[in-house]
Amino acid sequence: MNIVLYPKREEWAGLLERPCREDESLEKCCGLICEEVRRDGDAALRKYAWFFDRARIDAVEVTAEEKRAAAEQVPARLREAIREAYGRVEAFHRLQLPERRVYDDGRGTQCWQESRPIERVGLYVPGGSAPLFSTVLMLGIPARLAGCGEVVLCTPPNEAGEVNPAILWTAELCGVGRVFKAGGAQAVAAMACGTESVPRVDKIFGPGNRFVTEAKRWAARRGVAVDMPAGPSEVMVVADEGCPAAFVAADLLSQAEHGADSQVFLLCASPDLAARVAEVVRVRLERLPRRTIAEKALEGSKCVVLGSIGECLEMANAYAPEHLILALRDAGEWAGRVRNAGSVFLGYYSPESAGDYASGTNHTLPTGGYARACGGLTVGAFMKEVSFQEITREGLERLGDVIETMAEGEGMEAHRDAVRVRRERVSDINGEARP
Amino acid sequence: MNIVLYPKREEWAGLLERPCREDESLEKCCGLICEEVRRDGDAALRKYAWFFDRARIDAVEVTAEEKRAAAEQVPARLREAIREAYGRVEAFHRLQLPERRVYDDGRGTQCWQESRPIERVGLYVPGGSAPLFSTVLMLGIPARLAGCGEVVLCTPPNEAGEVNPAILWTAELCGVGRVFKAGGAQAVAAMACGTESVPRVDKIFGPGNRFVTEAKRWAARRGVAVDMPAGPSEVMVVADEGCPAAFVAADLLSQAEHGADSQVFLLCASPDLAARVAEVVRVRLERLPRRTIAEKALEGSKCVVLGSIGECLEMANAYAPEHLILALRDAGEWAGRVRNAGSVFLGYYSPESAGDYASGTNHTLPTGGYARACGGLTVGAFMKEVSFQEITREGLERLGDVIETMAEGEGMEAHRDAVRVRRERVSDINGEARP
Repeated sequence: MNIVLYPKREEWAGLLERPCREDESLEKCCGLICEEVRRDGDAALRKYAWFFDRARIDAVEVTAEEKRAAAEQVPARLREAIREAYGRVEAFHRLQLPERRVYDDGRGTQCWQESRPIERVGLYVPGGSAPLFSTVLMLGIPARLAGCGEVVLCTPPNEAGEVNPAILWTAELCGVGRVFKAGGAQAVAAMACGTESVPRVDKIFGPGNRFVTEAKRWAARRGVAVDMPAGPSEVMVVADEGCPAAFVAADLLSQAEHGADSQVFLLCASPDLAARVAEVVRVRLERLPRRTIAEKALEGSKCVVLGSIGECLEMANAYAPEHLILALRDAGEWAGRVRNAGSVFLGYYSPESAGDYASGTNHTLPTGGYARACGGLTVGAFMKEVSFQEITREGLERLGDVIETMAEGEGMEAHRDAVRVRRERVSDINGEARP
Repeated sequence: MNIVLYPKREEWAGLLERPCREDESLEKCCGLICEEVRRDGDAALRKYAWFFDRARIDAVEVTAEEKRAAAEQVPARLREAIREAYGRVEAFHRLQLPERRVYDDGRGTQCWQESRPIERVGLYVPGGSAPLFSTVLMLGIPARLAGCGEVVLCTPPNEAGEVNPAILWTAELCGVGRVFKAGGAQAVAAMACGTESVPRVDKIFGPGNRFVTEAKRWAARRGVAVDMPAGPSEVMVVADEGCPAAFVAADLLSQAEHGADSQVFLLCASPDLAARVAEVVRVRLERLPRRTIAEKALEGSKCVVLGSIGECLEMANAYAPEHLILALRDAGEWAGRVRNAGSVFLGYYSPESAGDYASGTNHTLPTGGYARACGGLTVGAFMKEVSFQEITREGLERLGDVIETMAEGEGMEAHRDAVRVRRERVSDINGEARP
């Protein structure tokens, strides 16, 4: 890891810069794949399953038989762990269910909002180097709590044309109705447009690589909502000297093994701690199964030593990390200073992996600096708030002048008329209302 | 208006189709404008103010002097109306402020979410044919309630290089710090990238024409969040025979005068009502100041007569209108059947213009079918939910097996290590923690 000692303020922006991911050829390439799926449907999905995943698939949809077989392949101990995580994630997300609050002006007007589930949602679970059944939980549980009518899931098959059994079993646990063997841009396009097998959905959720992110943009352009742009995963650890270097090193490595483009930062106020952490990282890296990935990620990583923990928090806010670990003795007191972050882990005993799997919070979080403007996935992302207003005849009489004056001020005569006609004809409504 | 009698189910999709707005040349043109603003800053804003708005401006920012002068030009009666609307919109939106709810597993793990304001937000208020000070309220009030640190506003100047006084006065009322004379794609690009005058923001809000929507996409690609895609405004009125035709006609016309591309629908179960409404629309259209605009919009509008009010509701859900007026005697009972809509107006005395100006609800709403997946603007859109978790040593001991088992199942050894190293070293933390 690169240790940077006491950088000046004007150097911060450079240190925190994320690699640029603009790529016109990617956009073009994704556009072609997506258009092909729109045109050729399942045939295009089969073609790209072979092209990208080296899988020959006949049916795009996973069959009931495959699901039954999968259940038997998941070890009991893992099933038990997933079930426990399910319960915790469900309990945390249940608290996000919205309450109806009514604004009543006491003069004949009531306004309120009601949440309605998004009817058809599509979940994307990446394949690649890890079978991310935890992501199935993080997408499937809020979808179920929201009450979405149709929940479908796409994930790439392996070379044998199969979906990982733990993913299938977890999808069943979450009540995901249908699972399709499709990955990458082509999966997103299938859910955005529909194919013979895959239904068109109203909103697409889930992380993914650059192809998936680009395809989500393509889908958004065509009127399908998407959760948030997914980028490389990030962690920033702010640590004090009381935290064992081994804890910090383990957190940095767990982020680094996510992907070669993962962003990994340690901020601290002690050159000694920075040196010790870098040493433990070096040693532990050797034994990691995903060492090649982690090594690559660590090349771009930085330990930044600043003058105080307060300055570390300022730098964290400037970066807006997806994950922020406050490995501080008095983490709870510092929490109030966090302005921009996706998910925050407080104290020496709250590793990021707890949030990735089982603390209860969602692990689908904003990356790439989006934490300045967006939070992680919630039940609310699977619903929409519909506004309602009910005005009585008397209410409109009272509110009428305000509306008419404003409509006139904006030059909107027909807007004004809509009130005026009701106020003027107040007397004859009853006649007309009872034919 | 075109009256369509009892269409078959398979004809619905065709009837409800929105005009396609895909346009590659628009994308290219917007991209060039935005890139120019990024490169040349204020100079580009001045150039385009001349090019699009026929305005020669020196300073891009509205001065304190201009603001003072504006206040005197707004009639007292209009100021009073805007103040009353402010109070109502503020009261309704205050109910949206989130509460903190904590998930405590009673075994050493606590998870919760805290809302943080987005620090820098940019509001866009269109110019064009109407001075939309109501939009200033609808964007400015939730921004203030959320506690956003820096709130700036862009709106195009008139040919004299001035901003409409009512817009300036309302911006002051809402506590908007700075106002800039910039419209269209160039305004969005300025807020996305920053110029010498305009600060860069984290999220951009507000309606606009196709240039604005396209520029928001450009901004989103560069890491700036945006509220929602804005499209032509829409209303769907579902009316029963008890509702005077004049009320329905006024609502249709008030939508039609928004813009030539407005979408206007009446759904009812009575051919007689449809005919009467069409006749009143024809007559009233004549006297509207914005007649040319409304006439154009009405060319594409439809009165659809269906077999029952229940069917009308189904069609409304299939279309997902921005505004849905249930001009029904028992509107409250039908409200529960609404699944997809932005804002719903219940009963004979709740015209859309009430929601546009003063009922209390927000008038920034999803168009183009986005109501299937998104709601209107809320205070929450100006904040983000940050997740927190705090796990004690005992808590991690209890949760550890679940996390380790799942990490192992996903092949994430370093994720597992982050827990294991903490469990193993439990005994020596105290030593290391007190140097």
